[in-house]
Amino acid sequence: MPTALVILAPGQEEIETTAAIDILRRGKVEVTVAGLEGTDAVVCSRNVSIVPDESLESAASKGPYDMIVLPGGMGGAKANAASSAVKSLLAEQEKADRYIALICAGPLSLISHGIGKGKKVTSHPCIKDDLIKAEYEYSEDRVVVDGKLITSRGPGSAIEWGLALVEQLVGKETADEVRAPLIML
Amino acid sequence: MPTALVILAPGQEEIETTAAIDILRRGKVEVTVAGLEGTDAVVCSRNVSIVPDESLESAASKGPYDMIVLPGGMGGAKANAASSAVKSLLAEQEKADRYIALICAGPLSLISHGIGKGKKVTSHPCIKDDLIKAEYEYSEDRVVVDGKLITSRGPGSAIEWGLALVEQLVGKETADEVRAPLIML
Ligand SMILES: [Cu+]
Repeated sequence: MPTALVILAPGQEEIETTAAIDILRRGKVEVTVAGLEGTDAVVCSRNVSIVPDESLESAASKGPYDMIVLPGGMGGAKANAASSAVKSLLAEQEKADRYIALICAGPLSLISHGIGKGKKVTSHPCIKDDLIKAEYEYSEDRVVVDGKLITSRGPGSAIEWGLALVEQLVGKETADEVRAPLIML
Repeated sequence: MPTALVILAPGQEEIETTAAIDILRRGKVEVTVAGLEGTDAVVCSRNVSIVPDESLESAASKGPYDMIVLPGGMGGAKANAASSAVKSLLAEQEKADRYIALICAGPLSLISHGIGKGKKVTSHPCIKDDLIKAEYEYSEDRVVVDGKLITSRGPGSAIEWGLALVEQLVGKETADEVRAPLIML
């Protein structure tokens, strides 16, 4: 069973966060929801309060994970981009050629932690200029897969992104099975 | 500021739940997340744990709300459909001609609590036959508005449904403003 670590940081976007966890679990990926700051409930961008499965410190010690997932929401994205724990996790993940998935403002962590340099990415339009300035190849596709780096745009593309994560980790057949009952456009 | 009560029941779909809360709050609706069974964190359908703002008992005593919102997910939908507290809230809401919004398996509560009889509705395909048998006018549109009753289909239509709730409660201009940064298809 493939594994994924979803980081949960204060101010993170709740739709993107639940979409990643939910769709990966529907795809039979073993997901750990890890609180950046510990085990307390985390207040997301629109004040939905989500309880992590464990702290990032604890979860990181049990790795590696096949995929590390960073949802967006400016508050959470900035917290992750400023975290040395996230930096070392992502650096290790890239070095071992394992998956990294980010959405919305999540790719701020690529810039600040020096991950995926020069790769093709997308993001929320609000950080497009930052990514271009940092010399990523910018795309406006809804989901962009470049090697083991998978990026997407915002809450409205979060389920599509989740399905792409399942497709990469598990396979297209499973992703299609997960997709059908969601009633996508 | 319009008000909405979002009920949070065990086994409820986490994407639909967060989409409703998040999009309504982006639309400047005052949202109360009320735990059907109290104030403890609620384990949703794919094991995301969400903390309600208060218990349904407490929240109900502070009503009425301009809108009552029932997300889907079979576990949560069945719990709401079996709840006498939900029954009296919905009956009062309908009698006063205030909004009721449901998605996915949420409309099971219409059937069991005798709400919106004969009205045009949609739902997840898995409860289509139940609604037809109970003599609702069934539609396969992604979001259906019939008077003050607003229904939708599943996680993949949850943001569209949230935007329809904002349009009804606040207005089309606000719904359009909320929609833009979400990056919808
Ligand atoms: Cu964002």
